[in-house]
Amino acid sequence: MSSAVRSRKVGRVPMPAVKKANGVPLYAQIREALRRQISAGELKPGTKLPGEDALTEQFGVSRMTVRQGVSELIDEGLLYRRRGVGTFVSQRHVQRDHNRLTTFFDSAAAEGFDARIEVLAQEVVPAKHMVAQALDLKEGEPVIYIRSLRFADGLPITLHDEYVPYKLFPELLYQEMTTMMSWEALERSGYRVKHAVQKVEALPAEHNIATVLQMEKGAPILFKHRTVIAEDGNPLEFALCYSRGDSYALTMTLKR
Amino acid sequence: MSSAVRSRKVGRVPMPAVKKANGVPLYAQIREALRRQISAGELKPGTKLPGEDALTEQFGVSRMTVRQGVSELIDEGLLYRRRGVGTFVSQRHVQRDHNRLTTFFDSAAAEGFDARIEVLAQEVVPAKHMVAQALDLKEGEPVIYIRSLRFADGLPITLHDEYVPYKLFPELLYQEMTTMMSWEALERSGYRVKHAVQKVEALPAEHNIATVLQMEKGAPILFKHRTVIAEDGNPLEFALCYSRGDSYALTMTLKR
Repeated sequence: MSSAVRSRKVGRVPMPAVKKANGVPLYAQIREALRRQISAGELKPGTKLPGEDALTEQFGVSRMTVRQGVSELIDEGLLYRRRGVGTFVSQRHVQRDHNRLTTFFDSAAAEGFDARIEVLAQEVVPAKHMVAQALDLKEGEPVIYIRSLRFADGLPITLHDEYVPYKLFPELLYQEMTTMMSWEALERSGYRVKHAVQKVEALPAEHNIATVLQMEKGAPILFKHRTVIAEDGNPLEFALCYSRGDSYALTMTLKR
Repeated sequence: MSSAVRSRKVGRVPMPAVKKANGVPLYAQIREALRRQISAGELKPGTKLPGEDALTEQFGVSRMTVRQGVSELIDEGLLYRRRGVGTFVSQRHVQRDHNRLTTFFDSAAAEGFDARIEVLAQEVVPAKHMVAQALDLKEGEPVIYIRSLRFADGLPITLHDEYVPYKLFPELLYQEMTTMMSWEALERSGYRVKHAVQKVEALPAEHNIATVLQMEKGAPILFKHRTVIAEDGNPLEFALCYSRGDSYALTMTLKR
């Protein structure tokens, strides 16, 4: 998982000793020692691990043993390697439950993140073809466009473009949108949301999106394309969400 | 959407004329003409579009008009641009419904793709930490590991690593796995699947995975991490699935 923009170097992190005779293989002891330090926050996301030589010396084990312990944490996604640079602690992922329509605040709070939304645009624009199709409008009909940036623990995680038919709810243009999504504002004004239909893809960050999300151009984006439908079957909101691949995950339960 | 490995050049594609006086803006006529050619299969995935000069000449409109028509199809994901190379027709995505546990064959067939599974490995291995945790085993306990590659219309789309506790179903080692997943084999032998718990992320393709999926290293992978749970609450199967971002999408309905 690439997280170059956020990487930071730290000095030597003190490593606990491993014991040669407690029945647990040495590489597993090293792996678990590192895991404990990561989950305790002693090794923070973006931190560079000491090199293999340093770890070999500190743990008092062979280089192969260190390598095996570290490589299993890489397999698990807790660490990631940047070729020629070093091994780093991965970002924690904000996990969104995708069985139900929930809000960014609910999910981030449940995961213990400090959540914040910054509104970048809130304006009336003519509906482009794709937006018009999703919202069952004619091309060029006015829609309220809200672009917002979602932060978790101060880092930009998701860029969110929402479109709502202007004729449906013109007041949305003047609502304070830093604590809710458009469909929540619609619910508060009496509309009943039935469900959302969503498509999820992985795509490379284009220049503009990479800049806003402070990531490398071409790095993976978890992309969602979503239409929120009312009880009466009419579309209420169309949204495109671009989330940093290294910081955002969806979770869901699939029934048999 | 990057699809470099599969790109192919074609000669000049004949373009239909646009009319200046039928009330539909010229750029929209160009956009819809291209859309029709893509959906009719006249412009196939991976095909390079003629350059702006050629399109300008063929449609008899200004370069700005061509550019606007093309750029809206890029916004919609039907076309993608490779800087300095040209504009290409995107791959169709295999769409998997993620409200229920379905099979690759069901989904691909529903979308009209020709589906095929190739088994790359089927063997007993000791469970690594992550696998042991997911399957509620001790580290090192034997698991049946099945690595398979899924093709849609002859192109490799998904690399699938499945793990099943050996003690649960040793016969799995000798089953023909080119038409089903492990949990389906378990069902056929009497186990009852309750649901699957799944996490979805976007991550860059590592060297090995990029090679198998015939994509560029670092290009986006839609990654799924999944545990299939039996009616009695015990885990039956743990799977890691790596799908080409440019060819695979998940769809789901989120209830309010």
